[in-house]
Amino acid sequence: MSRVLNPRGFASDNNAGVHPVILEALREVNQGHVIAYGDDPYTGKAVAGIREIFGAGTEVFFVFIGTAANVLGLSTVTQPYQAIICPESAHINVDECGAPEKFSGCKLMTCDTPDGKLTVDMIAYHMHGIGFEHHVQPRVVSITQATELGTVYTIDEISEIAGYVHSHGMLLHMDGARISNAALSLDCTLLEMTGGAGVDILSFGGTKNGMMYGEAIIFFNKTLCEDFKYRRKQGMQLASKMRYIAAQFSAYLKDGLWMENARHANLMAQKLYTAVKDIPGLTVTQKVESNAVFAKLPPEIIPALQQEFFFYVWDEELSEVRWMCSFDTTEEDIASFATKIRSLLQ
Amino acid sequence: MSRVLNPRGFASDNNAGVHPVILEALREVNQGHVIAYGDDPYTGKAVAGIREIFGAGTEVFFVFIGTAANVLGLSTVTQPYQAIICPESAHINVDECGAPEKFSGCKLMTCDTPDGKLTVDMIAYHMHGIGFEHHVQPRVVSITQATELGTVYTIDEISEIAGYVHSHGMLLHMDGARISNAALSLDCTLLEMTGGAGVDILSFGGTKNGMMYGEAIIFFNKTLCEDFKYRRKQGMQLASKMRYIAAQFSAYLKDGLWMENARHANLMAQKLYTAVKDIPGLTVTQKVESNAVFAKLPPEIIPALQQEFFFYVWDEELSEVRWMCSFDTTEEDIASFATKIRSLLQ
Amino acid sequence: MSRVLNPRGFASDNNAGVHPVILEALREVNQGHVIAYGDDPYTGKAVAGIREIFGAGTEVFFVFIGTAANVLGLSTVTQPYQAIICPESAHINVDECGAPEKFSGCKLMTCDTPDGKLTVDMIAYHMHGIGFEHHVQPRVVSITQATELGTVYTIDEISEIAGYVHSHGMLLHMDGARISNAALSLDCTLLEMTGGAGVDILSFGGTKNGMMYGEAIIFFNKTLCEDFKYRRKQGMQLASKMRYIAAQFSAYLKDGLWMENARHANLMAQKLYTAVKDIPGLTVTQKVESNAVFAKLPPEIIPALQQEFFFYVWDEELSEVRWMCSFDTTEEDIASFATKIRSLLQ
Amino acid sequence: MSRVLNPRGFASDNNAGVHPVILEALREVNQGHVIAYGDDPYTGKAVAGIREIFGAGTEVFFVFIGTAANVLGLSTVTQPYQAIICPESAHINVDECGAPEKFSGCKLMTCDTPDGKLTVDMIAYHMHGIGFEHHVQPRVVSITQATELGTVYTIDEISEIAGYVHSHGMLLHMDGARISNAALSLDCTLLEMTGGAGVDILSFGGTKNGMMYGEAIIFFNKTLCEDFKYRRKQGMQLASKMRYIAAQFSAYLKDGLWMENARHANLMAQKLYTAVKDIPGLTVTQKVESNAVFAKLPPEIIPALQQEFFFYVWDEELSEVRWMCSFDTTEEDIASFATKIRSLLQ
Repeated sequence: MSRVLNPRGFASDNNAGVHPVILEALREVNQGHVIAYGDDPYTGKAVAGIREIFGAGTEVFFVFIGTAANVLGLSTVTQPYQAIICPESAHINVDECGAPEKFSGCKLMTCDTPDGKLTVDMIAYHMHGIGFEHHVQPRVVSITQATELGTVYTIDEISEIAGYVHSHGMLLHMDGARISNAALSLDCTLLEMTGGAGVDILSFGGTKNGMMYGEAIIFFNKTLCEDFKYRRKQGMQLASKMRYIAAQFSAYLKDGLWMENARHANLMAQKLYTAVKDIPGLTVTQKVESNAVFAKLPPEIIPALQQEFFFYVWDEELSEVRWMCSFDTTEEDIASFATKIRSLLQ
Repeated sequence: MSRVLNPRGFASDNNAGVHPVILEALREVNQGHVIAYGDDPYTGKAVAGIREIFGAGTEVFFVFIGTAANVLGLSTVTQPYQAIICPESAHINVDECGAPEKFSGCKLMTCDTPDGKLTVDMIAYHMHGIGFEHHVQPRVVSITQATELGTVYTIDEISEIAGYVHSHGMLLHMDGARISNAALSLDCTLLEMTGGAGVDILSFGGTKNGMMYGEAIIFFNKTLCEDFKYRRKQGMQLASKMRYIAAQFSAYLKDGLWMENARHANLMAQKLYTAVKDIPGLTVTQKVESNAVFAKLPPEIIPALQQEFFFYVWDEELSEVRWMCSFDTTEEDIASFATKIRSLLQ
Repeated sequence: MSRVLNPRGFASDNNAGVHPVILEALREVNQGHVIAYGDDPYTGKAVAGIREIFGAGTEVFFVFIGTAANVLGLSTVTQPYQAIICPESAHINVDECGAPEKFSGCKLMTCDTPDGKLTVDMIAYHMHGIGFEHHVQPRVVSITQATELGTVYTIDEISEIAGYVHSHGMLLHMDGARISNAALSLDCTLLEMTGGAGVDILSFGGTKNGMMYGEAIIFFNKTLCEDFKYRRKQGMQLASKMRYIAAQFSAYLKDGLWMENARHANLMAQKLYTAVKDIPGLTVTQKVESNAVFAKLPPEIIPALQQEFFFYVWDEELSEVRWMCSFDTTEEDIASFATKIRSLLQ
Repeated sequence: MSRVLNPRGFASDNNAGVHPVILEALREVNQGHVIAYGDDPYTGKAVAGIREIFGAGTEVFFVFIGTAANVLGLSTVTQPYQAIICPESAHINVDECGAPEKFSGCKLMTCDTPDGKLTVDMIAYHMHGIGFEHHVQPRVVSITQATELGTVYTIDEISEIAGYVHSHGMLLHMDGARISNAALSLDCTLLEMTGGAGVDILSFGGTKNGMMYGEAIIFFNKTLCEDFKYRRKQGMQLASKMRYIAAQFSAYLKDGLWMENARHANLMAQKLYTAVKDIPGLTVTQKVESNAVFAKLPPEIIPALQQEFFFYVWDEELSEVRWMCSFDTTEEDIASFATKIRSLLQ
């Protein structure tokens, strides 16, 4: 599959490139010497920009990738005999090759969910054996916004989970690899959906929405991350030339680039949904609330379709596929994709 | 210390920015969609470029930073009850916040060295308790080329260590964060100094020599890394948009950019050495064999000097400082630095 | 609950004491000095005794407890990016406080089972993402014999699982904390049910069947445990005065003490089953195939019953309790227990 | 070497057997059922006995062996990015197969010591890089009393170390595998030498002084061990039939058995010292302050001597041997040993 994909496919939002504004930002900070490892003015400025959005009381740290943001955020607030409750479909459970267990020592307790969204009842199922030393002790609940299935928690749903979690002395983590898409979907601020709704730790991602690399971990309570700097370094995630992650975030947040990109990707997903939902033989399987469309197709047409527009089969057994739109998906991409599907299904 | 440093300082080669050719390479690959996580033509091309240098039989993997290259390379060939022998001054021992122990479980057995270079005798000191289950079992020897003290192992010295290591059923790892500076210093090829001299695993760094981020781990024997891809993912070092690391390496290796940068940095270190070595009150403490100058200075002049040209004190007690030159250090930087030193020491 | 229980309860087979023959064995080896850590004739003799049962080609190691036998056995044959498939109800999943994850780094992939027994279909559910670096890689299947629910795999069932497991390049581990009870239940030899049926690694327990402490890990293939001695020491499970574990095993195996104890405990469970199964208001919930009886009771009578005969509630929500019989349970214990239940249920 | 040693050797105090009073205690508690895992009256009584010695404010936990007492005690008060400072010769550094690193993730920072005893100056050497995220952060100092070289810290020496340690926000751990021998040597109470002198965490050993198995971890400050019960279980050190460890401790402390045994072993070491110190060709290399004698011997006589009385060579290169006396060493053992040495050296 080693080829430049043309036209753009629907495999993943990280198959897309980097937004030109981000590239330009890298060029702009490329002058002179600055102290390495984050003690530079560009990093200070990027952190300030993030705090404007999430609150002056937050602590912000940059790492290289989303898996690291999740794993280091979770490790920092857990001890190895504790547990992390998450959906069966969570990225931390199925797509991080066991990094959460390896790095934190914790067990992941998973919940079957039809749409990738946890509920209080699902969490409550795991709340037993508390204080009993033979059992791991639940410490964090992790939710993904938007979920791995493209669905989006409402602010009320997040608040309800946060309330339950906090009333049990636990913390709420949010994997925000696609948090921008969720915010645009809910038409709310990033803060309302995160710290404002009770989230304690946020993996704030940008790579899937036009950045090159770099993610932020945001702690809404400073007491949770007093030793985080050591964990980041020991976790092999302290960038020496930090200014180049910082510059990306500053550009990403300035002038609403993050919103523009996410709005576009979401809109493309809606258009794709509209274009395919009534094609006979195809069934959309999840609500289209962010930049993903999930659908069931007859298995025999999938290879031919993938040949032209690359994408992944989500569930082999169900013949369910995932189509992701990105900041650079075009209406033409969608039109020709839908045409191709229609022709294959006739 | 959060400021843009002007003029350039001598704190670290990673306080420098990114070479323009590297930046341009990022722009060039920024088109269309490609498969994420390395299954793209740019990554294929970069790996091929590295194999041209290190041999067709090598396996090459990209990670984000040098600490990760070291830790994942070492973890892959060790079990937790084994040990890694290295100099006391090794980056893996003093500058990685315990990541090698945390991630591999292994003990580091360290050797005092006057100049950062291991010898067979030093290694042999730790070769006891073999087969005795109460003791950790030495498995890898790790050397740094150029060393953290700016010195350089000759090819013969590396071969001798490799011979000893292999005759004891162990492996030789090289931390090559500044391997380009060493190669230029020895006027040899990268291969002669690594795989050709018996190195089994190499952390091949470029960030300190003009790249933005990204390092390569090179295994000279494929059987050592059959499961490395899982370790990289679990180690939180698998880049999604891999093409941007790959593009940097391709540009770095093409037309000898790595050599040009390293040659310049080494030359600047020689010029700095020449400019300061005879200043009364200053003693150069290590051979200047790569891009570093170590010197003892009266402690009272250090703050004033740092004010203008930032650098680090290496050993507080000895009042020993470290000055690093980089690909963008200029003769003017050196001249004004030396002038400043001279004036402070009068 | 800190009291000597009189009469004996049904809480757990490890609430029982030590069989007098075992105690006497400790006294017998208590003479003179012997080399510590297992290099003594008593350990040699115990290992030989175990090999007589399980085969001359096995490797045998003693540890202190069952959790350690499981965790060290599993850790030895796995790498941290691999996975262990087991029933949701497995001791390694619910009763070891996350020790398998902490020590091995592996993820546990669990299967819902009605009776604590895995099937090939359940295992197959987890067999995807093979070779895909984002996923953990299944490496071992762990089954418990007799299960945590008192049920027993037939030899054919074990063989079928082993066949599937081996055909996928994986290994089969058996948690044999109550393996003696299972062997008596099936009326087969220990070997037929373990190595003979394809088990690769066995935790061979005796503590629940009359020993004081000490378990054996048995590898049916020596190549699996070439470095086990280091893992045991690093796992904090190498006994200095090893002869006292060895002496217990020798006594346990000699003259069929293990069989006598297990036969008795199983028989008591059958008698308990017979005595309670027809009591109105009580429902036995699992097949009684070893030394456990599981039953549903009206929740309101449980505290009164526990007052006199201690036992554990297995599932609070279902009001399901677990009653374990042990080598020293008497017919009188059962009669008075059944009488008490009957009277409370009237 | 697999043989019953007769006459008793000088290899190790754990080559000795179990004191008859301990064996008898095991028999006495062997009646009826009690709750497993420590919630039984025997455990309560043993803990109370230990608290009588070390103070009502201590927390006491039983584990199986000394390595586990050390590793779990240290793990509980550290995070993986921290460091443990100890002598190069410490058991945790050379005899636990890397268990401290594997289980805690921490780096061990070692100090060369002539006699196995740390000093404040040695500790201070490692106290740099504090607050610097590239460095591990010193958190605990671990000393061994009596040391691995048979020497004994005075109470003042311990207090001085504790004062330094605490003034730097760190904790003091004591490996007390031979703490009874030290207490008898100093003629002080166990408390004066531990909590009274500033020790925070104590591994309180009995196995080397007449017990069969089992060690206690004592925390002098309850806030240090609020989650210890989970760490013990996850650390595979929670005994099911806990009463048998408890019974040993109760017997060990009652009527001063621990003192009697330690006094005897120390006395035997003094007699051995007296018997050999003037033999030409033999040099005693360490002060004889507990139950060990270290000596240099001509290498050629060692095998013949070991043939009859087993012991270990401590330092092959120096031809230095270690002779341990135990609670059952007799004056005859010493007389015949000394005679043998004398004859071999003529």
